[in-house]
Amino acid sequence: MNAKPLHLDANRLFSSDPTPRGIAQRLYSQVAKLPIISPHGHTDPAWWATNASFSNATELLLVPDHYVFRMLYSQGIALDALGIPRKDGTRANVDPREAWRIFAANFHLFRGTPSSMWLNHVFHDVFGLRVRLDANTSDHYYDTITTALRTDAFRPRALFERFGIEVIATTEGPLDTLEHHQAIRDSGWNGRVLTAYRPDAVVDPEHEDFPTALRRFGEISGEDVHTWDGYLRAHRNRRDFFIRHGATSTDHGHETAVTANLSAAEASALFGRIVRGDFTAREAELFRGQVLTEMAAMSLDDGLVMQLHPGCYRNHNPALFAKYGRNVGADLPLRTEYVHALKPLLDRFGNEPDFRFILFTLDESTYSRELGPMAGHYPSLYLGPAWWFHDAPEGMWRFREQTLSTAGFHNTVGFNDDTRAFLSIPARHDVARRVDCAFLAKLVAEHRLDEDDAAELVVDLAYNLPKRAYKL
Amino acid sequence: MNAKPLHLDANRLFSSDPTPRGIAQRLYSQVAKLPIISPHGHTDPAWWATNASFSNATELLLVPDHYVFRMLYSQGIALDALGIPRKDGTRANVDPREAWRIFAANFHLFRGTPSSMWLNHVFHDVFGLRVRLDANTSDHYYDTITTALRTDAFRPRALFERFGIEVIATTEGPLDTLEHHQAIRDSGWNGRVLTAYRPDAVVDPEHEDFPTALRRFGEISGEDVHTWDGYLRAHRNRRDFFIRHGATSTDHGHETAVTANLSAAEASALFGRIVRGDFTAREAELFRGQVLTEMAAMSLDDGLVMQLHPGCYRNHNPALFAKYGRNVGADLPLRTEYVHALKPLLDRFGNEPDFRFILFTLDESTYSRELGPMAGHYPSLYLGPAWWFHDAPEGMWRFREQTLSTAGFHNTVGFNDDTRAFLSIPARHDVARRVDCAFLAKLVAEHRLDEDDAAELVVDLAYNLPKRAYKL
Amino acid sequence: MNAKPLHLDANRLFSSDPTPRGIAQRLYSQVAKLPIISPHGHTDPAWWATNASFSNATELLLVPDHYVFRMLYSQGIALDALGIPRKDGTRANVDPREAWRIFAANFHLFRGTPSSMWLNHVFHDVFGLRVRLDANTSDHYYDTITTALRTDAFRPRALFERFGIEVIATTEGPLDTLEHHQAIRDSGWNGRVLTAYRPDAVVDPEHEDFPTALRRFGEISGEDVHTWDGYLRAHRNRRDFFIRHGATSTDHGHETAVTANLSAAEASALFGRIVRGDFTAREAELFRGQVLTEMAAMSLDDGLVMQLHPGCYRNHNPALFAKYGRNVGADLPLRTEYVHALKPLLDRFGNEPDFRFILFTLDESTYSRELGPMAGHYPSLYLGPAWWFHDAPEGMWRFREQTLSTAGFHNTVGFNDDTRAFLSIPARHDVARRVDCAFLAKLVAEHRLDEDDAAELVVDLAYNLPKRAYKL
Repeated sequence: MNAKPLHLDANRLFSSDPTPRGIAQRLYSQVAKLPIISPHGHTDPAWWATNASFSNATELLLVPDHYVFRMLYSQGIALDALGIPRKDGTRANVDPREAWRIFAANFHLFRGTPSSMWLNHVFHDVFGLRVRLDANTSDHYYDTITTALRTDAFRPRALFERFGIEVIATTEGPLDTLEHHQAIRDSGWNGRVLTAYRPDAVVDPEHEDFPTALRRFGEISGEDVHTWDGYLRAHRNRRDFFIRHGATSTDHGHETAVTANLSAAEASALFGRIVRGDFTAREAELFRGQVLTEMAAMSLDDGLVMQLHPGCYRNHNPALFAKYGRNVGADLPLRTEYVHALKPLLDRFGNEPDFRFILFTLDESTYSRELGPMAGHYPSLYLGPAWWFHDAPEGMWRFREQTLSTAGFHNTVGFNDDTRAFLSIPARHDVARRVDCAFLAKLVAEHRLDEDDAAELVVDLAYNLPKRAYKL
Repeated sequence: MNAKPLHLDANRLFSSDPTPRGIAQRLYSQVAKLPIISPHGHTDPAWWATNASFSNATELLLVPDHYVFRMLYSQGIALDALGIPRKDGTRANVDPREAWRIFAANFHLFRGTPSSMWLNHVFHDVFGLRVRLDANTSDHYYDTITTALRTDAFRPRALFERFGIEVIATTEGPLDTLEHHQAIRDSGWNGRVLTAYRPDAVVDPEHEDFPTALRRFGEISGEDVHTWDGYLRAHRNRRDFFIRHGATSTDHGHETAVTANLSAAEASALFGRIVRGDFTAREAELFRGQVLTEMAAMSLDDGLVMQLHPGCYRNHNPALFAKYGRNVGADLPLRTEYVHALKPLLDRFGNEPDFRFILFTLDESTYSRELGPMAGHYPSLYLGPAWWFHDAPEGMWRFREQTLSTAGFHNTVGFNDDTRAFLSIPARHDVARRVDCAFLAKLVAEHRLDEDDAAELVVDLAYNLPKRAYKL
Repeated sequence: MNAKPLHLDANRLFSSDPTPRGIAQRLYSQVAKLPIISPHGHTDPAWWATNASFSNATELLLVPDHYVFRMLYSQGIALDALGIPRKDGTRANVDPREAWRIFAANFHLFRGTPSSMWLNHVFHDVFGLRVRLDANTSDHYYDTITTALRTDAFRPRALFERFGIEVIATTEGPLDTLEHHQAIRDSGWNGRVLTAYRPDAVVDPEHEDFPTALRRFGEISGEDVHTWDGYLRAHRNRRDFFIRHGATSTDHGHETAVTANLSAAEASALFGRIVRGDFTAREAELFRGQVLTEMAAMSLDDGLVMQLHPGCYRNHNPALFAKYGRNVGADLPLRTEYVHALKPLLDRFGNEPDFRFILFTLDESTYSRELGPMAGHYPSLYLGPAWWFHDAPEGMWRFREQTLSTAGFHNTVGFNDDTRAFLSIPARHDVARRVDCAFLAKLVAEHRLDEDDAAELVVDLAYNLPKRAYKL
């Protein structure tokens, strides 16, 4: 086998300049082995409920990872050739080993990307591989990984423990019965897996399945969700149910950050139009904005931390959407405005120290212009980390460089891995910790921060801030 | 007293790499001791008129500094607990020493921020403190500072001289009688304190006090300011008065950069609606934009340099505004457009080499996209430095990196401290000089600039350019 | 002659830190001598058709370079004093040596800018100058350059060969007869000079010469261009003609990135209004957007690579436009939106792997927000390099840092020099190669990329990617 060596350097992501590198090494020694706090992500609770083995390299590492197959697709590789499932549940008849070979032969496309860093970390540390992935080593990889996955050491619970995960939150919709979370608790296994309440399906009237979802929302909550009051009661009902399954947060994925503050009468009238399906795009936006404000009000009562992930154009590619459905890599960031958009909600709840509202963005121009100054003023506001398209080392570095002066470190909440790719979780947290170490090391090396203070900060960023922010 | 050492490293803000650090050190030796040119800021001329002692640490360093108390507020500390004055003039009954203790116990929130750098500079160099501020050292700090302030060496004029201030400009409204500036001149003291003409109060018809301000504008100028011609004459009249008190510039704080170029008849008709209070938001915007263009016309006549500070949403937090009024940390940057907005004014005066128009921004995305290319073309345009939320080292660095290629160094105007925090002025200028040294050192170390040319440039940036730009 | 030495350091643009510098040196050795691929630019094919000598330093290096004279103009130097031609074809009566003296005396304005780097490279490597340009050395420069230009070694074809240009594309409008390209081919000289199809003159109905251009478009194509079908046939006709003269690409300079996807009937009706001159600004925009989509359709048929350069406000300065016409430095970048704007075109052709669509931007905030994610998904999309106002080392670095994680390297197309300044072409490609080496060296030094992989990548970026992207 003609192969290049795969090596994870102990100093990766640290400056090559000896002074900051030495500082970063010392800071990193404080956090390298800390437990993982994963307060926001998209892993499948069924993994830990059933503890069934993963099937093979392709199913585990390629098919679910839209960071990976979007890049392959952008270079002309058909999704069918990779075995990506279609909307109708079928798949092209693809041998997973062949799909893996395509991936391997094109792994050079990922040079310098976070995906390559995460995957190499997984290959090296989780599977013990010591050669790089390419066309020559494809089968070696496929066999090594697939064989390992058949062993008990690679079952979901064993990996959870091996990874040092102290707590992980999944994300479920309000129609979810949370049976997997219940099963985890009933099993006696003591891994801490929480849910989070993500009600988008019953909040976005422009989603194609909204009427169906709303009907089921009524059934599962036992409320008359076709009246405004009943609809709000249903949310309270489901939030309680989620809290009983460990939820400490809600999550909201909206195209914009628009909020509203309508009177009860206005909201009720608007909801009437929404329910009848007789509404404009502007009214749909207003409705989503009003629900955000209602969610904030409920958070003040029940204590759930509120997360907002705005600014994404979903399913931009209609041909792919028609064939493969959602989440196939055709979501795109949008310019996002926060100062005007959040004012209605903040006017009501912005000064409440017991309300915790974590903002994310896909528009990096807002870091220094809007988000840093807002989080550095409002007691309720916190900044979520560099998200999705921006969670590369450069993106994390820009986040810190552009929010530090206005929001400091303590109005941020540490790292979110936000991933479906379970095996990459340690790699992602390791990257985030290393970037924070490198960033703080630069401040120390340039005499803007004392190293003893940086040593406290780095533990805050990796461990204390996420636990505090998400009430874990 | 359990305390950590406080140390100001001679190489702070310079690269840790020996090559650029050595260059930066040599460049810095050219500018470290140059007099301070402070052409734009918000210090109180009464300090130098009366030369009264400052009262205590809290009143001097905490209460007036919205950079500081906004961060404390963002982490749930009530403004009343810090003794921030309310809109009605009252204050919570707070012992300033207790307020200082809250600040001290939370000083870790400022780690890595410019406030911590400025304050540590003040603590170390102005007050001779050699331990870091925290809960343990709070009283030591309070006593040391407050005791020092009672001595003559810490009176405003003595500090002015100690700080090496060659000239400082304050900012006053058109209704100001400039009695403090007159008193300074009459006193025989030779510190150079100038005023600057900031007419926002009589330019923004949406300000709650506009009708009152307009009436007083008429009284103080002796013009009939309820006609458009009289209104313009009143401005000319007050500008002359300000010039006689040393003013070399005007300053304009607007929500947008919109300018207008109406005919005299249109402007007069618009002004009629403004005076009657019968106008739309769009007309208010148009009016402000027209006044900017009129100010430019007057600048061509009387030589005052014109500054525009757009892009700020003032008083975003209505609860705080109701209780504490303006300037309590709830001003937020907005996305700002310049290319279309400034065209009416530039169409008339953009090519006038004798007109000097200094632009600022709170929207960093405009540096490379709009401001650099505009300043690198129009003879009248200059770029003010990284401003307010962006005057951290990272913000200054971004300003240089994103404007250098299109505007060069000579279309910029050096540093503005823009501060009410008198004691921090040397610290702020020192940071700016160090950042420029570090930036130029990188260019030299990467062989893009010769060190002898950089040595000329660094003196230009610290001293010559601001004197030239502001006609000082 | 009192002069400072001019030196081009072998390590310029590389980090001063020895580790990345060493890596960058090794990477650079792979690409320093590679032939130049120049797929997009604005050189004049008449140079190589006639092979006539350039006249003097001023005519060659100052008068055609709007990067240079815009900066001089911004500091109050009149364009007439530099001998810039006026719209009516006249010029101020200026001795070119005197114009050069003004330039020389103000060359300090360019410190740190890309112009100074490119020019110093030309001075040093092309003309063998070893002192810096300033007032003292002005005549030495003028004489050295002007004398050299009279020799055969400085004729256009000799320089083309000396510069190692493998292929260069010029840009011509659809009304161009391509006689110079024909002459080059007929001459037997084997330098490869291609044209590119830039139809803006017959696409923008708001251009003052559109009706005239459209009429000539009909004449030259032999089609009835006042009907929609005839207009489209005329484009196909001229594209074929351009392909026969070597064109592999089209180029489109629009104020926005708006595209449209009208039915044939709608497009035909819209074209009717355009032809009659009876249209709104919105209709003009829609028309330009529809033509872009038609161009994409034609590209699928004839294989021309499509380039879009949006986001520029042309001729912002009306006084200069009236006197000097277009391209005198008063073009300004605009905020630009891509996600919504390109959707109509991408809905039709975005998934076509045989369609190649290269996007540029003057709004750097779109790199990470829109362009990287789009190019990292759509098979047809590629990102052009940092363009025009952003082709400084800092701009190139931002381009890489903000697109790498989402688009990788292989969805980019290498460097475009985009210049009229023929002599600067080697300097510009050298800067781009050095910046890529420095960027990759940082990734290697921080252990994010193996050096053997970087050595492959750097050759891709300098040579393979542009050849592939532009089908050269």
